[in-house]
Amino acid sequence: MKPSSSISEPAGRADTADGGLFDGVLARGPVREAVGDRAWLQAMLDFEAALAVAQARAGLFGTGVAEAIRAACRAEAFDLGEIGREAANTGNPIVPMLERLREVTGETAGVAVHRGATSQDVIDTAAMLVSKRALGPLLQDVCGAADAAAELARADRATPMIGRTLLQQAVPTTFGLKAAGWMAGLDAAAARLAEVRDSRLAVQFGGAAGTMAGLDDKGPEIVRALAEELELAEPVLTWHTERTRIAELGSGLGEAAGAIAKPALDVILMAQTEVGEVREGSPGRGGSSSMEHKRNPIAAVSARACAMRAPGLVAELLAAMEQEHERAAGPWHAEWRPLSDLLTSVGSAAAWLRDCLEHLEVDEKRLRENLARHGSGDDVGSAAELVAKALDAHASARASRPATRPT
Amino acid sequence: MKPSSSISEPAGRADTADGGLFDGVLARGPVREAVGDRAWLQAMLDFEAALAVAQARAGLFGTGVAEAIRAACRAEAFDLGEIGREAANTGNPIVPMLERLREVTGETAGVAVHRGATSQDVIDTAAMLVSKRALGPLLQDVCGAADAAAELARADRATPMIGRTLLQQAVPTTFGLKAAGWMAGLDAAAARLAEVRDSRLAVQFGGAAGTMAGLDDKGPEIVRALAEELELAEPVLTWHTERTRIAELGSGLGEAAGAIAKPALDVILMAQTEVGEVREGSPGRGGSSSMEHKRNPIAAVSARACAMRAPGLVAELLAAMEQEHERAAGPWHAEWRPLSDLLTSVGSAAAWLRDCLEHLEVDEKRLRENLARHGSGDDVGSAAELVAKALDAHASARASRPATRPT
Amino acid sequence: MKPSSSISEPAGRADTADGGLFDGVLARGPVREAVGDRAWLQAMLDFEAALAVAQARAGLFGTGVAEAIRAACRAEAFDLGEIGREAANTGNPIVPMLERLREVTGETAGVAVHRGATSQDVIDTAAMLVSKRALGPLLQDVCGAADAAAELARADRATPMIGRTLLQQAVPTTFGLKAAGWMAGLDAAAARLAEVRDSRLAVQFGGAAGTMAGLDDKGPEIVRALAEELELAEPVLTWHTERTRIAELGSGLGEAAGAIAKPALDVILMAQTEVGEVREGSPGRGGSSSMEHKRNPIAAVSARACAMRAPGLVAELLAAMEQEHERAAGPWHAEWRPLSDLLTSVGSAAAWLRDCLEHLEVDEKRLRENLARHGSGDDVGSAAELVAKALDAHASARASRPATRPT
Amino acid sequence: MKPSSSISEPAGRADTADGGLFDGVLARGPVREAVGDRAWLQAMLDFEAALAVAQARAGLFGTGVAEAIRAACRAEAFDLGEIGREAANTGNPIVPMLERLREVTGETAGVAVHRGATSQDVIDTAAMLVSKRALGPLLQDVCGAADAAAELARADRATPMIGRTLLQQAVPTTFGLKAAGWMAGLDAAAARLAEVRDSRLAVQFGGAAGTMAGLDDKGPEIVRALAEELELAEPVLTWHTERTRIAELGSGLGEAAGAIAKPALDVILMAQTEVGEVREGSPGRGGSSSMEHKRNPIAAVSARACAMRAPGLVAELLAAMEQEHERAAGPWHAEWRPLSDLLTSVGSAAAWLRDCLEHLEVDEKRLRENLARHGSGDDVGSAAELVAKALDAHASARASRPATRPT
Repeated sequence: MKPSSSISEPAGRADTADGGLFDGVLARGPVREAVGDRAWLQAMLDFEAALAVAQARAGLFGTGVAEAIRAACRAEAFDLGEIGREAANTGNPIVPMLERLREVTGETAGVAVHRGATSQDVIDTAAMLVSKRALGPLLQDVCGAADAAAELARADRATPMIGRTLLQQAVPTTFGLKAAGWMAGLDAAAARLAEVRDSRLAVQFGGAAGTMAGLDDKGPEIVRALAEELELAEPVLTWHTERTRIAELGSGLGEAAGAIAKPALDVILMAQTEVGEVREGSPGRGGSSSMEHKRNPIAAVSARACAMRAPGLVAELLAAMEQEHERAAGPWHAEWRPLSDLLTSVGSAAAWLRDCLEHLEVDEKRLRENLARHGSGDDVGSAAELVAKALDAHASARASRPATRPT
Repeated sequence: MKPSSSISEPAGRADTADGGLFDGVLARGPVREAVGDRAWLQAMLDFEAALAVAQARAGLFGTGVAEAIRAACRAEAFDLGEIGREAANTGNPIVPMLERLREVTGETAGVAVHRGATSQDVIDTAAMLVSKRALGPLLQDVCGAADAAAELARADRATPMIGRTLLQQAVPTTFGLKAAGWMAGLDAAAARLAEVRDSRLAVQFGGAAGTMAGLDDKGPEIVRALAEELELAEPVLTWHTERTRIAELGSGLGEAAGAIAKPALDVILMAQTEVGEVREGSPGRGGSSSMEHKRNPIAAVSARACAMRAPGLVAELLAAMEQEHERAAGPWHAEWRPLSDLLTSVGSAAAWLRDCLEHLEVDEKRLRENLARHGSGDDVGSAAELVAKALDAHASARASRPATRPT
Repeated sequence: MKPSSSISEPAGRADTADGGLFDGVLARGPVREAVGDRAWLQAMLDFEAALAVAQARAGLFGTGVAEAIRAACRAEAFDLGEIGREAANTGNPIVPMLERLREVTGETAGVAVHRGATSQDVIDTAAMLVSKRALGPLLQDVCGAADAAAELARADRATPMIGRTLLQQAVPTTFGLKAAGWMAGLDAAAARLAEVRDSRLAVQFGGAAGTMAGLDDKGPEIVRALAEELELAEPVLTWHTERTRIAELGSGLGEAAGAIAKPALDVILMAQTEVGEVREGSPGRGGSSSMEHKRNPIAAVSARACAMRAPGLVAELLAAMEQEHERAAGPWHAEWRPLSDLLTSVGSAAAWLRDCLEHLEVDEKRLRENLARHGSGDDVGSAAELVAKALDAHASARASRPATRPT
Repeated sequence: MKPSSSISEPAGRADTADGGLFDGVLARGPVREAVGDRAWLQAMLDFEAALAVAQARAGLFGTGVAEAIRAACRAEAFDLGEIGREAANTGNPIVPMLERLREVTGETAGVAVHRGATSQDVIDTAAMLVSKRALGPLLQDVCGAADAAAELARADRATPMIGRTLLQQAVPTTFGLKAAGWMAGLDAAAARLAEVRDSRLAVQFGGAAGTMAGLDDKGPEIVRALAEELELAEPVLTWHTERTRIAELGSGLGEAAGAIAKPALDVILMAQTEVGEVREGSPGRGGSSSMEHKRNPIAAVSARACAMRAPGLVAELLAAMEQEHERAAGPWHAEWRPLSDLLTSVGSAAAWLRDCLEHLEVDEKRLRENLARHGSGDDVGSAAELVAKALDAHASARASRPATRPT
């Protein structure tokens, strides 16, 4: 699958996007926009468009009707704020969205809109589309950070430094082996997230109770066509209250957050004034207005701050798995925010870490001095061989991730 | 099908703050605006204004300078988006905000701006102001919900109904006793939150290491004046990395969420088709587009959904208490979002529950039928007496909450 | 009244492991013992035994030495309490365990014990062994519950019942489709856990800084042999502070908890007196001492209670991923308890749910009555076809899980 | 109230207490025993004894009957394991416990046992007793740690050292001001926990639906007497499903965990080889078997590890607040383990931190060297004055905590 190439930020974006005050720090990179309200609304409309196409393919109505619906499914024609306000009357934004959509399509096509679907079909499928589109840039940044760590590992595979346990100097290692560990964690997390994206993000379609009633037994056929249209997986059953997909998505993001936080913390610790082994090198960043001598590791600190959100947000999603009967009385609604927040936070953490590692300056003199202080020699065991093996594994991981490369 | 290529925002977007698509459900009521970006920025500027006044009172510079600064501290004169973007260079939005502020005040007053302060002084104090301002309407809604529960308790103190344990019919109780239990939980949560607001929300001022250096020993005096100006508590020490205040605030909100979720869940369960003992009565809400016979308990469902965020968000704040040295390398930044989200979610939950309980329709016939089905008589023990005692306690609680009444 | 003064333990206490008072409810089934202290200690000793064998294979010392060590590695020969108490001096139980082990093996073999290893090598590998051993019975119960749900789905694939959304009666479905949804969630969770068990549980061996120093470059060879001996995966690098394995294990358990909680909650709701569609049928359970007419759904309630622990425990594990340098100063120790607790709780939840579903009594008369009350007809769409497809998928899932069958 | 003076560990305690292998690290100090199974069982029996006395005072039966019951309520006469196993049949251990109790009391007194009570009355009251008894030693250790921090603050109020922000050297402060910050956090947490203990830990008594049925309107009178007997608060209503008390208790413990983790982390960071400003001084601890030159800060590391459990456990308790109707179908059972675990973990963290701070060795030479490296002078502002003010506040806090002093 191609990553969505055009989730672009328009030139004239007003400065009023809420959350913007802290977004420079906490919502870095392209993921925030990919999970913004506009992106959600477009994904909801993408569902309606694809459903019309799929139902036309199944013969429920003519292609012309489907094309009329599809043409109307453009988010920029909808008043997002109005939909949001009216959502309070029904508990979700689908009813007001459909009213507008039917106004635009006109009566003939209007009766074909949303046939056999329920609100949750729309929002769940939209959640999958939004997640898939957000995972594109997110994975690019996780993989970019892994590549940067690999470069550090390669360059310094044999550069000795002191290993530390419980934050005490212990025995020697190499900086390359440390960086290879960062790389391995990031690769593992990326592999897991890619797996979730490719196998677990599925369309949702089943109607109020998931039976696909009122569709002349063509429900299963429509689901297959819908999955093809939207390039999502085809589920065996609806998953309105079977939320393992959400759990795996959330958990994969939580794992990535941890894999990001680890190198960020190591950079912060190595950048301590008294340790001085690394320094962030991005130009124009990290200065302190009051203390000129300071060079703050802003990227690592921000990556860590963003990643720290994950455990609580994953817990929210897991707690919301307990959903009643055919459609839940609260836990489903409770997924929307933590899912978006998790994508944003982990995406931001990944963008920061990539920046941090791509510009990391290693002070080899300090590495040597700190090691010498300890007097424990420089036997680094099999470090170089281990790094070589790890870089081989990284090369294999890279080879299997075409989808996350920039187009 | 390709996803639509234009997730763009319309030119005339004004009040459609992002997040708006789900805000009708997940961010009901006035709290969301009270924790929005504008509110945060204004609170930051309020700190700078109050600091100037406090330092003028301490004789650091003249009143005219303070007045010039104070006059410039109006959020509407600042470009929020620009500040947010530049925040990425220093890790927080204070540096760019101060640049703008000094441009506005001009050179003379400019040198007096932010004297002896550090970025965290501004943001922490702003967090307290934002929280205090958000707690006003939030507590009004929690107390309003408690009052509505009290009214139900009073009206039905002796109305028998079946009590249920493990969701099985057990022995009789009264609807009034059930409602009194809701009331008691809400009152307890409101009392705790009011206590936190009144005793634990404090100004922050200490400079980079909390020593109040560079202020001619007038630091403590300035802190006192600052607290007076902003009507916040005066702390003994700076609390840059001593985060019990944040923990108590977050925990209080978590407790309130639980106290709200409990009656919301009971309403949902009593409103089940097969139980039918209550029904939400807000006009124009809860209908289903596809199923006319349905009357969904939208308010209770939404209250519950909002409240479900709290445990994970509180966990985020508690995990962030572990802050390094004089100012933390990540955990501090990690507080900003969960604090705002918690206020918004709990505020929304409270607004929904209040609406739910104020319009709750009790079906006494169904109460009797369900009780009779069981054949366990109608000995409700001391229920009426207990309700009376609980209402007395509620009356006392009300008497001690003038601050949360509308002015 | 004074509290009783003698909270003492009886002399003959043997199998009454602490925690036992609530274990009947909260630690049902075989998993608890599999993660008990004895099991942990044996797993630690298994590491030492396998390491000796692996190092003998690599030629570090003779087979006789390895055999002497292996023979001594029997948990029953160790005083667990004493080791636990002495652990306080070094921060983990390995140092005192090794002292005892060397006493038993005698001087000659003693010097070969634990060569090149660090405490974390032992405990991490033991954690993997304990997890793998606990996942055996745990997965049997998850799969057993899935099989029971499949049987319900098969039997009632076309039995109409009312579908419920927001706990309101909505449109018809079949009981079989509902049960198939339970099955699908359990199968998904089991598949994920089996995948984690088979691909992510790896040995740990690298010495203090993970370099495999002091082993004449034979480290990598020893790791491979160790993995073979213990039937765990061979990692490319040590993962002392790269904790994605733990994250995936914990997340998989969290997902399973949610997949268990969902059917448990449905059973509780369907068993409500006013709904009466199902009833737990295990003999001798669920009676109430004071209310003879009651039949409590104890198994479903207990399954749910156990599963509710998971989100918080997973959050603990994810938060602990941020580990410093070569070995962490706290976060590593912080994993031990939540990992054991998670295995125990999810294992218990699975055992309860399996029991619940294997003995579930369905009241078809009440299913019909509740459906008729609503008057919405009995169009169940493609329910039967969907169930058939889901059962096919279940059959495939069963075919691929030989490892979890009882031997 | 006197702290429970006699929760002693018997001489002959077998080594089989499960959990023991890691208890030296993760369950240090007296709290673990105070929340052990024996302590829970005794607290349950204390409820039954006190209830009998209270009901005799209310005239329900004679004093002799009450005395017979009271005499039988000794935990050591019960087989804990058997009760635990039978608990699986009813979902909690009360039914089997009552069977044994009635066997012991004989028929006459037996009919008076547990009159009008429900299982949850027993377990909830026991939870409060266990918590109160555990909070005694827990608060002693929190306050002991605060006192140790106060001593450090006093001794080094003017000892200059470098202040650090984002782990970078920033501007000077004093070691006393840093230690005063630790003290302030611990004092705040202790004050909050003492407040919860003294005002929120209440008896529970109301029968199956909380109506106090079957007691001739004497229920309220019995509750008052019960509260007096057990030295717990008297609630206005039962709180079977109104769980703000549990939320405040759990949150208070979570706050304490954060207040403990902060100084523990600072000690770990200051003890780094490259920083070297402090060193743990407890004799015989912290050595490394393989690295003689190392001196690990075991106490601080262990304190931190224990404290890290809290956010997840608090989240469990908060999520469990959503309890159905008169008594919940799972969430109540879900409280038992996290409550005990939280008391144990925070108690252990407090014991470790107290030990750490009471034996902390400060290296003034390194403090000076690290400060000099930076060349930023030694203007420590109002540090000494601030420490003095903080010590005054600490003295006031101490004066108001007689209950936590050792007797």
